[in-house]
Amino acid sequence: MGKTGIRRATLGRLPMYLQYILENVDSPTISASKIARDLGLGEVQVRKDLSMICDAGRPKVGYETEILRRCIESILGTHELTPVVIIGAGRLGQALLGYNGFLEFGLKIIAGFDNDPAKCGTEVFGKMIYPLSDFQEYCSANNVSIAALTVPASEAQAVAEFAVENGITAIWNFAPYKINVPESICVKQENLALSLAHLNISAKEQ
Amino acid sequence: MGKTGIRRATLGRLPMYLQYILENVDSPTISASKIARDLGLGEVQVRKDLSMICDAGRPKVGYETEILRRCIESILGTHELTPVVIIGAGRLGQALLGYNGFLEFGLKIIAGFDNDPAKCGTEVFGKMIYPLSDFQEYCSANNVSIAALTVPASEAQAVAEFAVENGITAIWNFAPYKINVPESICVKQENLALSLAHLNISAKEQ
Repeated sequence: MGKTGIRRATLGRLPMYLQYILENVDSPTISASKIARDLGLGEVQVRKDLSMICDAGRPKVGYETEILRRCIESILGTHELTPVVIIGAGRLGQALLGYNGFLEFGLKIIAGFDNDPAKCGTEVFGKMIYPLSDFQEYCSANNVSIAALTVPASEAQAVAEFAVENGITAIWNFAPYKINVPESICVKQENLALSLAHLNISAKEQ
Repeated sequence: MGKTGIRRATLGRLPMYLQYILENVDSPTISASKIARDLGLGEVQVRKDLSMICDAGRPKVGYETEILRRCIESILGTHELTPVVIIGAGRLGQALLGYNGFLEFGLKIIAGFDNDPAKCGTEVFGKMIYPLSDFQEYCSANNVSIAALTVPASEAQAVAEFAVENGITAIWNFAPYKINVPESICVKQENLALSLAHLNISAKEQ
């Protein structure tokens, strides 16, 4: 299946491929060149993408539609939604709770945690906010291993340690602070300000 | 000054360098090796970063502190805040309006626009939401050339065209849709769902 090392750009196109395949399940086989043509993508790119995610392609035939579909669904995990929680139910945390774009990647933000008693017990876009004291029990009961950290920079390290101690193995960190966690923990640093700054500099250069 | 082609990673460290320099303005000169040591970074990396942003470094001496400060401030534009507006005052748009992390990169989100009459005329985190009919006048009066698009995918193309027609030259697109605009327009596509999906896959592989 060759999941290892799948590039971000390839991953980004998988939902599009999957949608295309679902619309064409009646064809027993499907080729990279046809997908490329129909989606307005480069053929080399599609060929490369598909070879990275499914090794069942055959020259001049392409892929069995059903097998290719299963390969993509297995990577995206669309048949078994991966639950994610947020820690920090402030503005950004609440925005993430209300955002539904994660579903097409097989992910679902299912609850929020906060240490503010005024927020705990309330619902945000239909999702509960719990106190941090419920974190371990909730995550264990709901098989949660991914947490998004939407807390201030000053709290990021302590919250990250708390999350790791309570079974989290992957952290999506929105706090502008480089958290220090064991190597076995996956961390993705999200820096919205940096993205905007980069756009600004690119625009000035043009 | 060598601003051209400055890498995202380098850019990301500039606020940290600037803060360090401001704390050390009493030293007439400052060297990459000292900065690296004090900030816990690799010396080669710091040396590379600084050479990309300021060509006034001298062997065995380093940089004049004042000149290096000015180089970084000029890139970050911290002496003249760049105004940014958001189009689409939904959950994510509102979260961006309330986020202050942009300031350290010399950027400020100053207002929001929406076509929902119920939102227009209200304030979100102290920032006004205006109707789209005010867009051109407002952006021209406030020298705005950057817009963040926080609208649904189905509206992204039309809103992008509207923004470009009204003088926007850089678009930070949060809608999960590849907008098609003239080449002279800078576009940065932000895909939060993709980021989370990538973290998920990395975590599975570990």
